[in-house]
Amino acid sequence: MTDLRIYVDLAPAPDVVATLRSGTTGHHLVFAPEPPTSVLAPGRIDPGFAEVDVAFGQPDPESIRGASRLRFIQISSSGITRYDNAEFRRLIAERNIAVCNSAMVYSEPCALHALSFILAQARHLPRSLQIVTANGTAEWDALRDACTLLQGSTAVILGYGAIGRRLTELLKPLGMRVLAYRRRARGDEGVPVLTPGDLDRVLATEADHVFNLMPHSPETIGFFDTRRFGVMKPGAVFYNLGRGATVDQDALVAALRSGRLQAAWLDVTDPEPLPNGHPLWAEPNCHITPHVAGGHTNERLSLVRHFLGNLDRFVRGDPLWDRVM
Amino acid sequence: MTDLRIYVDLAPAPDVVATLRSGTTGHHLVFAPEPPTSVLAPGRIDPGFAEVDVAFGQPDPESIRGASRLRFIQISSSGITRYDNAEFRRLIAERNIAVCNSAMVYSEPCALHALSFILAQARHLPRSLQIVTANGTAEWDALRDACTLLQGSTAVILGYGAIGRRLTELLKPLGMRVLAYRRRARGDEGVPVLTPGDLDRVLATEADHVFNLMPHSPETIGFFDTRRFGVMKPGAVFYNLGRGATVDQDALVAALRSGRLQAAWLDVTDPEPLPNGHPLWAEPNCHITPHVAGGHTNERLSLVRHFLGNLDRFVRGDPLWDRVM
Repeated sequence: MTDLRIYVDLAPAPDVVATLRSGTTGHHLVFAPEPPTSVLAPGRIDPGFAEVDVAFGQPDPESIRGASRLRFIQISSSGITRYDNAEFRRLIAERNIAVCNSAMVYSEPCALHALSFILAQARHLPRSLQIVTANGTAEWDALRDACTLLQGSTAVILGYGAIGRRLTELLKPLGMRVLAYRRRARGDEGVPVLTPGDLDRVLATEADHVFNLMPHSPETIGFFDTRRFGVMKPGAVFYNLGRGATVDQDALVAALRSGRLQAAWLDVTDPEPLPNGHPLWAEPNCHITPHVAGGHTNERLSLVRHFLGNLDRFVRGDPLWDRVM
Repeated sequence: MTDLRIYVDLAPAPDVVATLRSGTTGHHLVFAPEPPTSVLAPGRIDPGFAEVDVAFGQPDPESIRGASRLRFIQISSSGITRYDNAEFRRLIAERNIAVCNSAMVYSEPCALHALSFILAQARHLPRSLQIVTANGTAEWDALRDACTLLQGSTAVILGYGAIGRRLTELLKPLGMRVLAYRRRARGDEGVPVLTPGDLDRVLATEADHVFNLMPHSPETIGFFDTRRFGVMKPGAVFYNLGRGATVDQDALVAALRSGRLQAAWLDVTDPEPLPNGHPLWAEPNCHITPHVAGGHTNERLSLVRHFLGNLDRFVRGDPLWDRVM
């Protein structure tokens, strides 16, 4: 299979273009005139899209309907919010289009980012890096006493996919117990998978650290709401590296103020960034990074290499990496 | 062996006293009138010390000379600065006194603290937790690009003992390579041990992350000086969780200013805390916690339990934990 028309809406940085060109000899690259600036922003509709066989980036779901030759979509993110609905899944199934995300590219940085959060919390880095205190003072004793080990504590990871699997590999050596929660258990998780019926009981009695890696979908919007935070184990720590809309942020503010939650670490919010004056900015135990968990040096090159590997598999008819539909 | 006189200069908090009393039935506890406030502060000399068989805490080295019945000293820290000299070692050997530190108590919190440092650096948490930036801006792209993975990078751990061994167990799952440097290689390190002749070459060409866990001793004072920082691989990150005096701090300031070092993460300095206006406070890539790496909830109880376990072993004549002399 040669002479594929490949639509690319990644920003055409020189290294990206060079690597793409050398990896797609015999095919035809079509660059989007205005690539989207982020995976959360919709791309522009481009008439050139109608003629392509392959799309790489964040193609507009409406354009896909009109692209009759399209057979393979490589999404350049781990999240697939704008594609993750019944209507789109039906279209993809009818038209026999393979859809892959870039989970393999993001599992390592996102798992590291989550690990940096839990360690910064355990060792109280935000406070510890700010205070100047002499050995032996009451303030120093209190800080040392607040620092915790992680041995024997329990983490629940919700939205357990490639990131959760890698995070588990990093939490286990700390002596932690890991439980998973996901839409469809596959039996290959390697850790116990909670059923919806188990979840609240485990959140109430066992979960010291709750990692929310869930995608944004109709089923997950506001999943963490007043009721859910209300059942959580007092003193639990909440981490969100999934999507902001899965959390009712007013409920999160209340859970932090009441002390039900010890702290929250968020890489995603709704909207991003949170506006000035949003009450989460004022919560001393709420720590926010600006949606950078997946970031890493040469990220775009990693995405291109992942795409080229998958394109090769597509051309040969081999099973694709990170196929999500 | 019963009816031992056991000198304790740990702060006599109620939980400590209760646990000590119930674990030392048949022996006699002697509490120091004024326990030292930190392992860096000298204790007061107490005439009651002369009659004891066992000492637990930070006993004054001069007092030990006069305590003719003393057979076992349990030091309540991992560092043994004030005892780590030829004169003291001679006295201990002549008098056949067993000296143990509390490395087992501190290996876990210190290794976690070191891990929190390298992850906070890799994910640029100090900056990331401060800036508010929208997805897709140049500032956001730069931050994402600055974030790194740790796979394939090399750490050198200097002063490789119990903490270094535990840190290795936590760094390996990140895909890192670990090399050790220590005063006396024992062959059981489980990682390659550098000789003094190898060290500078490895620092110059391989070490991306340099963990200084060295004790304060005549051989280690100013070990990291202008020359040593000058040979280090450009962009290396320096971590100090050993003792402040092992670093020439003016040389460290210069290495940060020149960009030779990408960043420094220090839990120890000289003095502690650094005075107001010390140039290290002004270095944007210097991150300082106030000597809390060993801290953890119920730290004193952990020390007491470690001591009681060792006292049991001493009474039975079994090999002691964490024996250092």
